[in-house]
Amino acid sequence: MVSSPETPRVVSVPDAGWVQDIGPLEGMELVVADLQQVPDRAAEIEVCVPPYLQGYDRSTLARMPRLRLVQLLTAGYDGLAEALPSGVALANAVGVHDTSTAELALALTLASQRGVPQFVRDGATGTWASPRVYDSLADRRVVILGYGDIGRAVARRLRPFEVRVDAVASRARPGDDVVPEVLATDSLPALLPHTDVLIVAVPLSEATRHLIGEDVLRALPDGALVVNVSRGQVADTAAILRHTGRLRFALDVTDPEPLPSDHPLWREPNVLISPHTGGPTTAFRPRAVRFLRRQLGAYARTGTVPHIVSTH
Amino acid sequence: MVSSPETPRVVSVPDAGWVQDIGPLEGMELVVADLQQVPDRAAEIEVCVPPYLQGYDRSTLARMPRLRLVQLLTAGYDGLAEALPSGVALANAVGVHDTSTAELALALTLASQRGVPQFVRDGATGTWASPRVYDSLADRRVVILGYGDIGRAVARRLRPFEVRVDAVASRARPGDDVVPEVLATDSLPALLPHTDVLIVAVPLSEATRHLIGEDVLRALPDGALVVNVSRGQVADTAAILRHTGRLRFALDVTDPEPLPSDHPLWREPNVLISPHTGGPTTAFRPRAVRFLRRQLGAYARTGTVPHIVSTH
Repeated sequence: MVSSPETPRVVSVPDAGWVQDIGPLEGMELVVADLQQVPDRAAEIEVCVPPYLQGYDRSTLARMPRLRLVQLLTAGYDGLAEALPSGVALANAVGVHDTSTAELALALTLASQRGVPQFVRDGATGTWASPRVYDSLADRRVVILGYGDIGRAVARRLRPFEVRVDAVASRARPGDDVVPEVLATDSLPALLPHTDVLIVAVPLSEATRHLIGEDVLRALPDGALVVNVSRGQVADTAAILRHTGRLRFALDVTDPEPLPSDHPLWREPNVLISPHTGGPTTAFRPRAVRFLRRQLGAYARTGTVPHIVSTH
Repeated sequence: MVSSPETPRVVSVPDAGWVQDIGPLEGMELVVADLQQVPDRAAEIEVCVPPYLQGYDRSTLARMPRLRLVQLLTAGYDGLAEALPSGVALANAVGVHDTSTAELALALTLASQRGVPQFVRDGATGTWASPRVYDSLADRRVVILGYGDIGRAVARRLRPFEVRVDAVASRARPGDDVVPEVLATDSLPALLPHTDVLIVAVPLSEATRHLIGEDVLRALPDGALVVNVSRGQVADTAAILRHTGRLRFALDVTDPEPLPSDHPLWREPNVLISPHTGGPTTAFRPRAVRFLRRQLGAYARTGTVPHIVSTH
């Protein structure tokens, strides 16, 4: 059952568009499987790329006896590793969503800072607001919590805005071409009282669940802005609701998600909510195609890929 | 009547806060004049800094017999030069509004591109929109029309967003550290059909009045975004209204301004309007104070200042 160099390895992708965009890859045959049911060629699939935005039936992965790798198109992978059959590696998408998610983080930050939600509400009533002094992003102190690829892409975009940026990650480490150093999470209590904008870009894990809770929020000064572009459960919604009168929030992700129409978060004027749109933009497809080419090329040559997040 | 080195030159500033923030300047006495009426020390004022956001009575300037310089806190100066007495020079504020205005240009661009106005409207009804692919700013072609200090500050902020930026100004000239070259206005007809985002940052003049009119708008492709952070009259409102079904607009300035509550522009879902908030943010004051110190220092030493826009 071991693939010989003459037998192409079978890779499933979610639809025919991916087959066409990725194009021919030496030693690989691309087949289409949307994972709504067990695919026709389930017995041959060695690498599976599940659908990106559409839901799919995870149990189909257990019906692929030759499956060795699930290559996600998402950055997040919470809960999937545990659901995979033994011997199947899981890789996430790295460098594919940075652009789009970091761009949204800046969009939410700048829109909140410069009053865009109020302009939209005023537009509905034809109200030209009286002149007043708005908060700029310039001169603000920004903390990026979570300094992986997305955090770094946020920092790179923030740099020309005349802000002070502090990067915080699980462990302290030297900086890069964007920030002079990366601070450890234990520096947060000292940073937060002087933080004007907190941008959250950590992965969801047991260590980060409800990280943005009462302690963090209470430590922020009045008027600070919290921007969450990671996962809803990284924040404690009940704690957010206790601080909406004092802090401002821009949330691309919520808990629960989707947010039910009668949820009190919708009614808070200081809360801007986008419906988990960090990833799916026109920036995704060309970057995902380049990424899959690199990953599948590596798999064809070496039998494995970079960015494995779990194997068991 | 010529000032001797021993007699301090009298400079009026709009309120006592400016006196305090600017602090002592050798050879200068700062006095307060809000120009709502002829100031007490009108006979002595040699340099006048008119109020920034508040309106004032321009005729008071003609009641200052020793007046030699009006130093504005605005970048724009349309119409004022003609109203000044003979022998009075006019200087605008350069480098004071770049930060704030460029930041707003990015806020309006990113908010429009990533759907923020719709998120705000959906928030009012508690609607979590279904997943869809949004337009990113990344990979878009952006034209900055008007490449003075504000245009350059816009370009600098755009650079990390993975866009192609073309700068266009009245005359072609070599580039800078941000763009490889500055194109002349006559290159617009070739550029516009491939432009996804057109950011307008030209000063208002007879040459630029209604520059964003039928010809420019018709040349843009469907779905393009036009961002105006200059002056309302740079665009032809009637032409905008003819293209709101096909193009998108984000306007910090309008014509007329303020926009009356029954104006049809308010009712266009593809038009985001901010009430001329490019300049007045918290970024303004510290930059304006540094600028006035430099300008007044230069005046004390040399009897004139950089950034004279008119003298007659």
